[in-house]
Amino acid sequence: MGKKLEMDRLKKQIEFIVEIDKLKQICRQTVLMDKSRNENDAEHSWHLAVMAILLKEYTKEPVDLEKVMKMVLIHDLVEIDAGDTFCYDEKANLDKGDREQKAAARLFSMLPEDQGREIHGLWEEFEECETPEARFAAALDRLQPLIHNTRTEGHTWKKGNVTSDKVFARCGRIKDSSDILWDYTTELIKNAVDSGLLKP
Amino acid sequence: MGKKLEMDRLKKQIEFIVEIDKLKQICRQTVLMDKSRNENDAEHSWHLAVMAILLKEYTKEPVDLEKVMKMVLIHDLVEIDAGDTFCYDEKANLDKGDREQKAAARLFSMLPEDQGREIHGLWEEFEECETPEARFAAALDRLQPLIHNTRTEGHTWKKGNVTSDKVFARCGRIKDSSDILWDYTTELIKNAVDSGLLKP
Repeated sequence: MGKKLEMDRLKKQIEFIVEIDKLKQICRQTVLMDKSRNENDAEHSWHLAVMAILLKEYTKEPVDLEKVMKMVLIHDLVEIDAGDTFCYDEKANLDKGDREQKAAARLFSMLPEDQGREIHGLWEEFEECETPEARFAAALDRLQPLIHNTRTEGHTWKKGNVTSDKVFARCGRIKDSSDILWDYTTELIKNAVDSGLLKP
Repeated sequence: MGKKLEMDRLKKQIEFIVEIDKLKQICRQTVLMDKSRNENDAEHSWHLAVMAILLKEYTKEPVDLEKVMKMVLIHDLVEIDAGDTFCYDEKANLDKGDREQKAAARLFSMLPEDQGREIHGLWEEFEECETPEARFAAALDRLQPLIHNTRTEGHTWKKGNVTSDKVFARCGRIKDSSDILWDYTTELIKNAVDSGLLKP
C-alpha cells in the first residue's frame, strides 16, 4: 500500500477511535463497588476483559482468549447510538435489536471495510452466542453485574424490583460456559436471597 | 484440583476483580473528547485495548495481540495505590517507581500465586519496554492522550505549560514501534504548534 493510502486508512481508524470515546458516557444501571456513581460502558468493558484473562481457565470448552477479549471490548459499542437498555425492562427490550443493528451499521462502517467487517462479525458472534468464545463473553457479561449487585446491597435488583427467578434466568448464560462459575453464581444468588438483598 | 480448592482459587480471583473496580476512580489528566470531565484509568485502558486491535497492523515488528491487550488492560492497576502521576510533573516522577513497585506487590499478591506472577510479569515487561509487545503498548499509551489533546484544544498541554520538544520526547516511544504512527504523531504535533494549541 502506498504511503498516502496507508495514511488515509489510519485516519479513518483514528476517527473511529475518537468516536468511540462516547462509550465512556453511556451509563449503565450498575453502580461502582463503593456506590458513588453509576458505571459506564467503557469501564464495564474493561472489567470484563480483565475477567476474561483471569477466569479463562474455568470454561467448559477451550476458548481463544484474544477473540474473547476483542468481543467484550467492542460488545457494547452499539450503545453509543442505541443507549443502555435495562435488562429487566421488558418493554425497552422489544426494539433493542433494531436499534442496535442500526448502530452497528453506522459505527462499524466508519472503519476501513475489511476491519469494519471483522468488528461487525465479532459483535454479531457475541449477540448470537453460539461459539465457545461468545458463550464465555456472555457469561462474563452476566457475572460482572451480579458481583456488583452482591457488593452494593442489591442496588439494581431493588431498583428493578427483581426476583431471584429472573436473576437465575438472566444468569443462565453462565451455566452454558462454566460449571464452577455457575456453582459460584448459584451460591451468590442464594446468599442474596437469604440476606434479603434479593426477593425470593 | 478438588472442587473446594477450585472454589477457593476462584474466590481469590473474585476479590481481585472487586479490588480493581477502584481503577474506575483513578483520574487522569486527560479530559474526554467533549471536555465534560477527566478520563479515568479504566476507560483509558479500555481505549488502548481497542486501539491495539485496530492499529496492530502498523507495528515494525510482529506482535502477539493477546499479550498487548493483556498489558494495556493491566498497565495502570498500580495506580490504585500509587495514584496517577502527571507525566510532565518532574518532581512527582522521582518516586513514582517506588510507589508503583509497592502497589504491584500488594495488588498482584491478591491473586493465586501462578496468576499473580503472570500479571506482575506482564506489568514489568510493560515498564521495561524491551519487547515488541511492550513497545507497541507504550506507543498506544502515548498516542491516545496525544489524540485527546489535539481534540480538546490542547487541554493537558496548556495545564502543564508544555512545549513541543517535551511532547516530541514523550512520544518518542511511538517511533520505536511504528513508522506510520510516528509520521502521524509528528503531523499532529506540528499542526498543534501551527494552530497555537501547543507552545513551540
